[in-house]
Amino acid sequence: MPLLDVSKSSSHPSDDEQKIFQYIDHHQDTFVQSLSEWVAVESDSIQPHLRGNITEMVKIAANSLQALGATVELKNVSSQDEPYGQNLSLPPVILAELGKDTAKPTVCFYGHLDVMPAKKEDGWKTDPYTLTEMDGKLYGRGATDNKGPVLAWINAVGTFIALNMTLPVNVKFLLEGMEEAGSHGLEDLLKENEGFFSDVMYIVISDNIWLSNKKPALTYGTRGNAAFFVEVECCKKDLHSGSFGGIIHEAMFDLVALLDSLVDSSGRILIPGIYDDVANVTNEEMKLYAPIDFNFEEHKANIGVKEFLYKTKEDILLNLWRNPSLSIHGIEGAFSEPGIKTVIPSKVIGKFSIRQVPNMNLPTVESQVKEHLKRVFSKRNSPNKLTVSMQVAAKPWIANIKNLQYEAARRAIKTVFQQDPDMIRDGSTIPVARMFEDITKKSVMMFPIGAADDGEHSQNEKINRLNYINGAKVFASFLLEISKLHSGSNLMTTS
Amino acid sequence: MPLLDVSKSSSHPSDDEQKIFQYIDHHQDTFVQSLSEWVAVESDSIQPHLRGNITEMVKIAANSLQALGATVELKNVSSQDEPYGQNLSLPPVILAELGKDTAKPTVCFYGHLDVMPAKKEDGWKTDPYTLTEMDGKLYGRGATDNKGPVLAWINAVGTFIALNMTLPVNVKFLLEGMEEAGSHGLEDLLKENEGFFSDVMYIVISDNIWLSNKKPALTYGTRGNAAFFVEVECCKKDLHSGSFGGIIHEAMFDLVALLDSLVDSSGRILIPGIYDDVANVTNEEMKLYAPIDFNFEEHKANIGVKEFLYKTKEDILLNLWRNPSLSIHGIEGAFSEPGIKTVIPSKVIGKFSIRQVPNMNLPTVESQVKEHLKRVFSKRNSPNKLTVSMQVAAKPWIANIKNLQYEAARRAIKTVFQQDPDMIRDGSTIPVARMFEDITKKSVMMFPIGAADDGEHSQNEKINRLNYINGAKVFASFLLEISKLHSGSNLMTTS
Repeated sequence: MPLLDVSKSSSHPSDDEQKIFQYIDHHQDTFVQSLSEWVAVESDSIQPHLRGNITEMVKIAANSLQALGATVELKNVSSQDEPYGQNLSLPPVILAELGKDTAKPTVCFYGHLDVMPAKKEDGWKTDPYTLTEMDGKLYGRGATDNKGPVLAWINAVGTFIALNMTLPVNVKFLLEGMEEAGSHGLEDLLKENEGFFSDVMYIVISDNIWLSNKKPALTYGTRGNAAFFVEVECCKKDLHSGSFGGIIHEAMFDLVALLDSLVDSSGRILIPGIYDDVANVTNEEMKLYAPIDFNFEEHKANIGVKEFLYKTKEDILLNLWRNPSLSIHGIEGAFSEPGIKTVIPSKVIGKFSIRQVPNMNLPTVESQVKEHLKRVFSKRNSPNKLTVSMQVAAKPWIANIKNLQYEAARRAIKTVFQQDPDMIRDGSTIPVARMFEDITKKSVMMFPIGAADDGEHSQNEKINRLNYINGAKVFASFLLEISKLHSGSNLMTTS
Repeated sequence: MPLLDVSKSSSHPSDDEQKIFQYIDHHQDTFVQSLSEWVAVESDSIQPHLRGNITEMVKIAANSLQALGATVELKNVSSQDEPYGQNLSLPPVILAELGKDTAKPTVCFYGHLDVMPAKKEDGWKTDPYTLTEMDGKLYGRGATDNKGPVLAWINAVGTFIALNMTLPVNVKFLLEGMEEAGSHGLEDLLKENEGFFSDVMYIVISDNIWLSNKKPALTYGTRGNAAFFVEVECCKKDLHSGSFGGIIHEAMFDLVALLDSLVDSSGRILIPGIYDDVANVTNEEMKLYAPIDFNFEEHKANIGVKEFLYKTKEDILLNLWRNPSLSIHGIEGAFSEPGIKTVIPSKVIGKFSIRQVPNMNLPTVESQVKEHLKRVFSKRNSPNKLTVSMQVAAKPWIANIKNLQYEAARRAIKTVFQQDPDMIRDGSTIPVARMFEDITKKSVMMFPIGAADDGEHSQNEKINRLNYINGAKVFASFLLEISKLHSGSNLMTTS
């Protein structure tokens, strides 16, 4: 099957879409008011003492869904992964559904109701928990991550209800409250609720952002990550470099040599075999890169980098998204404070990680890294103790963009934003996409509505009013397109 | 002039010495009682709020010296170097003298009255400020560093006074109260009080320890230190390794390569020219090493090192004392906590230092290091910013052991301890010896009485009762030997 030719799809709203878009435009301020109420709840999942706020936020969202006529279940999740002790229970997870028409496909939307910590003193221009509009931007913690997109979904569905229009598909919601803290309990919940997913065909996550400030995007892959500790121990306790310098095989000598053996000055990973399993770039894939809106010169200037390792947009994106990369994060156990300490550290742990892409295999990577480091170390004839361990092992996620829901989303975007989306990946690891795919075996799509400059996790987080409102439109249009593609002559196989 | 043949010198105490030793033995408990009173004063110079205790301690010591008949002056020192703000004045420094006989040589003793912090909770078996005797060991903060040795000097001089014996030499004391904090103001004080040193011939410092638990030692050299910062900056702020890994010349890549270029796995420094100015080992010098009491296997076991870089006592001591060594202390600006942080650090500062020995020249070392690092960096074609700076520059100190005071000390040790001292150096940097020599141009000797296991700066610091009592004897004997060597046929030139 050829890649979808999005230019052929219609960009004129249908009559239904026109009614829906009009309704959404007329109710903009109501929708902003809802977001304001949601942002006002400091549902911070990082600080345990605010846990109660998350439960409050879950109840507010559950009420919103019930008001649409959804069947809502609050699922308690086990606190096995709970990082703060067993006494502090986890907030419940919302499982909700609207429609049970077996003739229709079912779309499940995943989102989260918790936020990262924020304090005015951190450098916010406005109170983070008071949604404040300036120049068409709605500032507030959670505005884009993830309360705005969750509400955009609710508003999309709510518009069908308000207009007495039949929902074109069955819709399910899975909303959790611990995402920022690591989605504690979510994996178990997914496994325990297979029934909830049995009739789901498509899972949509709207918890990331575009690559551009202006141009919409669909995300079809994220890199995984393999994080390693390489530990060298030379003695029982830290020594004074005056009293022992010159007679010790210093652990730091070994460690800097080991870290220096990982990557060359061009960024190429020197671990033998590490590139063997990386999928080749196909011509079809390369065609996705040309239209992407990515000004890497601006990107470079923003972060204050003099030169990237690559000179073209394509090479930069390929190396951010679909090639492995190695980063060295730091060293534990050595002197890391300002000033000088004349110490010979006894035990030092180098920390580095390798971003994973298809079709790399984590156990293979683990043994390649371990063998490489052992080989380098053995050549040094060091009497020190070497320990290498893989601490994090997260697989990459890659979707089949020929899947019908990607076509539906493209069409919806074309209709609402009057342009084709960038087909993008994310260089970082978003475990939830892979988790949903692995456990439910359903098609997963990341369908962002936030702009590149929204400042997720940062001070002055915002969502553009237009993105928030267009978000409701594009999600509604997406549901209509799913239905059309399923029922009409455009039906495509899913895979 | 040949090295002194210590075996020829007498080891039988003279009549005067017998009287003195007997007096000291009979007054052991009084001397221990004085030490107990001194240890009881928490004259901690690290914690600013305890500054008043140092001034109290200075007054107690001044009274002890006045009781001997000394002329005592309390010199206020400028607080230019003061680390805690100008409002907190420095404790005064004691300048004291006994005897002004121009026919006699003058010996000046330097010591300090302040201590390192200590709390019972840190792991002390006994209250650190209550001198406690167990198995012939006197436990307490400052017992060996440096209150015990200071009192041993006062007791030595006091014994001459108590016995109505003429002091064989003029004696001066310089006692400060800020040594552990970096001898703030001392350098200026020395420069401003040239007159005090004009008639001084010998300066004695008893602020270090033996190499052995049992065998006395004289210290004739310390290594200097050149500490460097090597800073690499790749961007304005820390980046996420998922979002940027693969396209950035990471600062850590450059830094580990730079650090890895400094030293090979055998500990040899790879900076071109660094060994050029290191003084050759002479046969005379090598002869000093054979008799030294140093069980390096025990030393190795104590610190939990599997193998040293060298296999013989001589090679180990040569590389600790009289060869340069390079140690890598750590990295500032990288991730250094437990766990994982997927960060690309923007600015990282590697910290390393090179111990200096005669006849290395600090400006030469500085340019060798800078040129080497720039050369390595330029080969990497990195767009990052490299900055190398020398942060500490302390010269080594080496004494001429043919100087008469070393002979006098050897003879005194032979008389009191019935064995020749080990002639040792210290691998670490003790700036005060070099400072005295540079400013006063007088002969400096380090004459320790503490044993290797005294635990300076550590929990359960102690001085052996025997070392403390023998300290008074050996210092008294030293003064007699100085006098004898000056007046008698054994007079040797000083240089």
